[in-house]
Amino acid sequence: MMQPNKHVYMACEATFEEASTVIYGAPFDGTVSNRPGTRFAADAIRSESYGLETYSPYLNKDLEDVQIMDSGDVDITIGNKVKVLEELEATAREILKADKLPFMIGGEHLVTLGPFRAVHEKYPDVVLVQLDAHTDLRDDYMGEPLSHATVVRRIHDITGDGGIYQYGIRSGTKEEFDWSDTHTTLEKFSINTLKDLPDLLKDTPVYVTIDLDCLDPSIFPGTGTPEPGGLTYKELEPAFKVFEQLNVVAADIVELSPPYDASGVSNAVAAKVARELMLAITK
Amino acid sequence: MMQPNKHVYMACEATFEEASTVIYGAPFDGTVSNRPGTRFAADAIRSESYGLETYSPYLNKDLEDVQIMDSGDVDITIGNKVKVLEELEATAREILKADKLPFMIGGEHLVTLGPFRAVHEKYPDVVLVQLDAHTDLRDDYMGEPLSHATVVRRIHDITGDGGIYQYGIRSGTKEEFDWSDTHTTLEKFSINTLKDLPDLLKDTPVYVTIDLDCLDPSIFPGTGTPEPGGLTYKELEPAFKVFEQLNVVAADIVELSPPYDASGVSNAVAAKVARELMLAITK
Amino acid sequence: MMQPNKHVYMACEATFEEASTVIYGAPFDGTVSNRPGTRFAADAIRSESYGLETYSPYLNKDLEDVQIMDSGDVDITIGNKVKVLEELEATAREILKADKLPFMIGGEHLVTLGPFRAVHEKYPDVVLVQLDAHTDLRDDYMGEPLSHATVVRRIHDITGDGGIYQYGIRSGTKEEFDWSDTHTTLEKFSINTLKDLPDLLKDTPVYVTIDLDCLDPSIFPGTGTPEPGGLTYKELEPAFKVFEQLNVVAADIVELSPPYDASGVSNAVAAKVARELMLAITK
Amino acid sequence: MMQPNKHVYMACEATFEEASTVIYGAPFDGTVSNRPGTRFAADAIRSESYGLETYSPYLNKDLEDVQIMDSGDVDITIGNKVKVLEELEATAREILKADKLPFMIGGEHLVTLGPFRAVHEKYPDVVLVQLDAHTDLRDDYMGEPLSHATVVRRIHDITGDGGIYQYGIRSGTKEEFDWSDTHTTLEKFSINTLKDLPDLLKDTPVYVTIDLDCLDPSIFPGTGTPEPGGLTYKELEPAFKVFEQLNVVAADIVELSPPYDASGVSNAVAAKVARELMLAITK
Amino acid sequence: MMQPNKHVYMACEATFEEASTVIYGAPFDGTVSNRPGTRFAADAIRSESYGLETYSPYLNKDLEDVQIMDSGDVDITIGNKVKVLEELEATAREILKADKLPFMIGGEHLVTLGPFRAVHEKYPDVVLVQLDAHTDLRDDYMGEPLSHATVVRRIHDITGDGGIYQYGIRSGTKEEFDWSDTHTTLEKFSINTLKDLPDLLKDTPVYVTIDLDCLDPSIFPGTGTPEPGGLTYKELEPAFKVFEQLNVVAADIVELSPPYDASGVSNAVAAKVARELMLAITK
Amino acid sequence: MMQPNKHVYMACEATFEEASTVIYGAPFDGTVSNRPGTRFAADAIRSESYGLETYSPYLNKDLEDVQIMDSGDVDITIGNKVKVLEELEATAREILKADKLPFMIGGEHLVTLGPFRAVHEKYPDVVLVQLDAHTDLRDDYMGEPLSHATVVRRIHDITGDGGIYQYGIRSGTKEEFDWSDTHTTLEKFSINTLKDLPDLLKDTPVYVTIDLDCLDPSIFPGTGTPEPGGLTYKELEPAFKVFEQLNVVAADIVELSPPYDASGVSNAVAAKVARELMLAITK
Repeated sequence: MMQPNKHVYMACEATFEEASTVIYGAPFDGTVSNRPGTRFAADAIRSESYGLETYSPYLNKDLEDVQIMDSGDVDITIGNKVKVLEELEATAREILKADKLPFMIGGEHLVTLGPFRAVHEKYPDVVLVQLDAHTDLRDDYMGEPLSHATVVRRIHDITGDGGIYQYGIRSGTKEEFDWSDTHTTLEKFSINTLKDLPDLLKDTPVYVTIDLDCLDPSIFPGTGTPEPGGLTYKELEPAFKVFEQLNVVAADIVELSPPYDASGVSNAVAAKVARELMLAITK
Repeated sequence: MMQPNKHVYMACEATFEEASTVIYGAPFDGTVSNRPGTRFAADAIRSESYGLETYSPYLNKDLEDVQIMDSGDVDITIGNKVKVLEELEATAREILKADKLPFMIGGEHLVTLGPFRAVHEKYPDVVLVQLDAHTDLRDDYMGEPLSHATVVRRIHDITGDGGIYQYGIRSGTKEEFDWSDTHTTLEKFSINTLKDLPDLLKDTPVYVTIDLDCLDPSIFPGTGTPEPGGLTYKELEPAFKVFEQLNVVAADIVELSPPYDASGVSNAVAAKVARELMLAITK
Repeated sequence: MMQPNKHVYMACEATFEEASTVIYGAPFDGTVSNRPGTRFAADAIRSESYGLETYSPYLNKDLEDVQIMDSGDVDITIGNKVKVLEELEATAREILKADKLPFMIGGEHLVTLGPFRAVHEKYPDVVLVQLDAHTDLRDDYMGEPLSHATVVRRIHDITGDGGIYQYGIRSGTKEEFDWSDTHTTLEKFSINTLKDLPDLLKDTPVYVTIDLDCLDPSIFPGTGTPEPGGLTYKELEPAFKVFEQLNVVAADIVELSPPYDASGVSNAVAAKVARELMLAITK
Repeated sequence: MMQPNKHVYMACEATFEEASTVIYGAPFDGTVSNRPGTRFAADAIRSESYGLETYSPYLNKDLEDVQIMDSGDVDITIGNKVKVLEELEATAREILKADKLPFMIGGEHLVTLGPFRAVHEKYPDVVLVQLDAHTDLRDDYMGEPLSHATVVRRIHDITGDGGIYQYGIRSGTKEEFDWSDTHTTLEKFSINTLKDLPDLLKDTPVYVTIDLDCLDPSIFPGTGTPEPGGLTYKELEPAFKVFEQLNVVAADIVELSPPYDASGVSNAVAAKVARELMLAITK
Repeated sequence: MMQPNKHVYMACEATFEEASTVIYGAPFDGTVSNRPGTRFAADAIRSESYGLETYSPYLNKDLEDVQIMDSGDVDITIGNKVKVLEELEATAREILKADKLPFMIGGEHLVTLGPFRAVHEKYPDVVLVQLDAHTDLRDDYMGEPLSHATVVRRIHDITGDGGIYQYGIRSGTKEEFDWSDTHTTLEKFSINTLKDLPDLLKDTPVYVTIDLDCLDPSIFPGTGTPEPGGLTYKELEPAFKVFEQLNVVAADIVELSPPYDASGVSNAVAAKVARELMLAITK
Repeated sequence: MMQPNKHVYMACEATFEEASTVIYGAPFDGTVSNRPGTRFAADAIRSESYGLETYSPYLNKDLEDVQIMDSGDVDITIGNKVKVLEELEATAREILKADKLPFMIGGEHLVTLGPFRAVHEKYPDVVLVQLDAHTDLRDDYMGEPLSHATVVRRIHDITGDGGIYQYGIRSGTKEEFDWSDTHTTLEKFSINTLKDLPDLLKDTPVYVTIDLDCLDPSIFPGTGTPEPGGLTYKELEPAFKVFEQLNVVAADIVELSPPYDASGVSNAVAAKVARELMLAITK
């Protein structure tokens, strides 16, 4: 008998019970109810994934050999940031409770706050490893404490000093950079010190968040705030081998905005980052 | 427990058993295995449908009130026209056997031949009602009998004279137009005589095929062969009221090529045509 | 001595004191702080206006002969709908207080609520004349009372029955259409009865809001929710002669989203609508 | 033996000697030496023509039945308007001398002045029939007498009153419209009176110039100055039957700017206009 | 007397007799007869070549100093892979017979098989040097032995082990990579060992095939299957100096798909690769 | 009281009197009066600047700490190169006279000649430091001495040998490269020797001109003549620290063509280059 159409990331066809890792989309990009940007990212990545192979010659691993489920996009309350974060937190909690790894596809960067809370609940010593162009360390953005420009500051509210590792940062206010001097570990412009993390963190639970705008706009034009001077894809690739060696307990990729790249290359990049990251962290 | 991501046309969430109409995609556009055109149409229409309402103020009907299932795209053998047509025929046959109405989203126009064969098997007196910019009546196209430029001629091979009704035609060779004079019913440039069909056909089983390039490229640029001088959307809308009065036993819409319209308007048009057509013919 | 760069709608170079009409932009499209859609509309319209002439052969009027000031975009609190509406209300109030006509360029349609409040304060019998594809009459949208899908319902909260005139509507839920039967004056699909308004309304103060998606997506693809079956530009043009005969005390045009139309045609359309509307209503 | 690649409008493969009509491109759009706009029009039209049929069901004529040669683009002196016009004049003169009909594909509208001079030399009583959105009647444009905004005024310098017939005009300064009252025949907004020309002009030699922006930007977005409110393609089509009945001795189509329409629809429109116009006027 | 329009790669104006190298296009991308992708590549490269100089400062060579003919696109049988390959083989054979070097512009990568057969006929010890993102070593693709995903495997059928040199490969199935271990020479991710070829191959006849997707999608988005992590243009440039030192007897560049890059940059890249490659290998 | 809309580069809100640096746009790209390319660059850069921060972590400087005025675009005489250059010269002279630093945003590269003359008048020993893909050293371009392809040759007419420093050059005729051997200092393909300039030039007055096509088309597709093989943004960034150490008395950035990059990335790059360059040279 015919079945309703499924639309999942390539080869991620495990059931919830079988799965080690569970994908969920966070189609949040503000209060407008149609069209603008990152809300379409997870869907675009699913579609684009079929242009890739399941096998990664970089990691010598294959999606066919691991158990991943794609649960689709979370049904969020458009236009209500507070509720959206709660809904994403609940989704991550459900996955964590079943001892699986939550893998979120944003959405704007603010969405990271939701699942991070659920992860922190289960792993109180969890640290954030962030690849990003922007510090996201403002205390408020035009008076607003919840914003994609403040999200890492909000996470610092949870972890305190020593809990935030930032890489590839090339944009922020002077105040943000100054603040990071005493409150976070931050590498400007590159990710060279990322490889020191396995020694440093050992078995510490890690939440990996990749704001895809850490990549240079040449390879990733489809994002809300393109910032020239970022990573090439080749410069990013070694990060996945580092993540293989960490105790990653949750991850996300955020800030793909498909409408801004008609060529579709940004979608392909995001789909490949998703593959590599899932292969690196799925047990 | 979490479920795998579904991706169906808005509100078309019936099970196969419940459904009166069953949607299936025909992602066929030749032998290239990634990217080119119409293969992405059904997926694009599903995504875009969520920008519409379920209610049609034209027909005063609502998708919430009918039972439709979206079975996804048929898994076709890329690059093998003969097999693809067999696969689409088999899908249509399965739906017809369960006494449901098959609703196909192409794909290039050649795909119509597959389900038409299955429909003709069940309804030997079925006729084709075609809205199109092109005659599609060539006997062969550069030596090839199976092509989007010959598809209606191939269907005529099955129905014989009296079985083909063509509307909105504005492009073809002189030979095609001449041939149509004695073998098909053809209205050039417009669809004014479409409204006579209910009286003419009464209960005759009808296969409706809408090549979306019957619409003017102003409203439908996203197609393989844009032909200026077509229908406005408003000029097309009354066709759905005509289809309501016919004994439509199968239908399709074809030739949306999403990559050629970055604005997304062509997707929105195709999604709306799908809604109106499904509402018109679903019992 | 050199002056800072000004950027105003073509020929709208009056001072505030001189001006009869004052343009202000409402760059609101949700909480995302960069890129998405309608927030860029007013700026795009200003730039595009220089591709037009100041003279309208339709109205036989010239922008050179009237006094209009372009005050730029209001400095809004991104991501806070309630405050944004207050800020727009305050701007309109300042203009009205000086006995000038406020002319707003949105932004998403929700923005209309702000200035409408200020207008209603000065003219308690003001009515809304709306050209739109969508009813915008939901009482709430996914639980949220303030939304572009509810804005006209919110304005009805202020005016009560008899205060809302809707034209060109071709999309909405069945509930919205049913509700409009007893609470608003609504013409479906076209604007033929618009010409009856001068006789009907006489000197009643009128707020004109043009949701540019009343136009067909063929001529106006650059919008958030394209809905096929709308007005051609030629079908819209007579509306401006009707507005000439009404006592229009405020006006806006909304829902241009420049990023969705790379060809720039939507910007040109919006700029021309702005010219015609300003010429029609400026004393 | 293999031959160098030819690139001609579909089916226009006559030799110069055989040809009744000779196509030449005028790739002029100012002094920039790469990329900007209309200079690429003729090449784009040639490529796009292969998406059409050679047969026109409107005119019941076929390019296979007439003799047309495509001589390619004239080798112009970039950035020197005076010389460019001389070069285009010389090309037209060579074609006219051989008693063939020159058919130019612009380029910006200024290019019409060059061939018009050559035509006037051979046919001193030639009149201009212009389809356009803009009057092009300024005496100078920012001090400059040679401009696409002055070209018809320059042609009036040659023909004097009674020599200019303008249709579809919907943009200009008040001065231009006023001037036209006494110096040209001008129909605003539409082309309804075009059908009176055969009776009026009888055998008078006619130069037909179609500024493609006479079409609405919905169907023709790829142009330098889109002006909403223009002709649909269907409204333009009858013009070709009128041209069939005139003594057309030269023609051009101008102002296609391919880079501004990524969908390629504008190219398709221009190619179809070229086919219809060539079929209408080629003996 | 005026001549029909020629359209050749910049400065490639030799006659067949004069020419050392002969360009021919292979506009094959499947069975769809209009629009999709790579079939438009050769034409786009010809047009774009005029934005380059004839002189290469990298190779210190000038197209003005060599004799190249551009014979246009081969007239292929659309939708029939077997025939298309025969037609391309015949074209290459004709060029080789005249002791000239065939230079093909694809088309999808499958096209390489045609001319390779002709080259192998003349030079039985010919080897393939391939730059590519993908292995193209599948034995069949969804049951189909002739596909762009199998083309190098088909060529291996002809050359046997030792005849295939692959560089820059970053995508394939695990099976393909494993198979290459014993059957081809393959460098993953980069082309560093390419410079060893002159010593290794000495005078062995070489067929060079450049799948342009070996380049990173940042610089080459206009291709069917963008795969992040590829070469920058600067990383590719030294390859041409290597090719200068090999006994190259035929070459091609494939997989440019102009519709997928509205910016035109991919066309410019392909045109420059063509210039450098032709300068490197033309005697 | 409300003020007319200002549109200035982010944070460049000084008055003329306060300003150390004055921005002015040169919207020149030939004689076409609407739409084509670089004329829209300055406006696009102003808009895009608001996506950046005012603080540069590279230079550790902030626009908030310097005094810059944005005077808008110069009101040029379209289509008259000679006059345009005079107008730009006059603007630069006015700024220099007030002992401020002129900072021009082009426009095509020819515009540099205008302000260079004014700078040379005040600083007769001024030298040109040029970052570019192209030599721009032709003596004439198709007979025309004033062109974007000849602009540096014209500046050499003023400075004589020893006055021109060229970096990143990767395109030109053989004659241009040969000529540069004896007349200019030219580094091919890279900008490695730029860092020697402070020692070499010491206090010599310097005019910096950055043709943005020195950047690779991967990061800067939005330009008239994309030339693969250019600088990454990271490779360009150190140049700004070099400029900090020079006695820069005037500067410009040229050749951004916004219409050719729908993603907006080129605008973002140009805006960031402007920020860095202004921070580097403003005292």
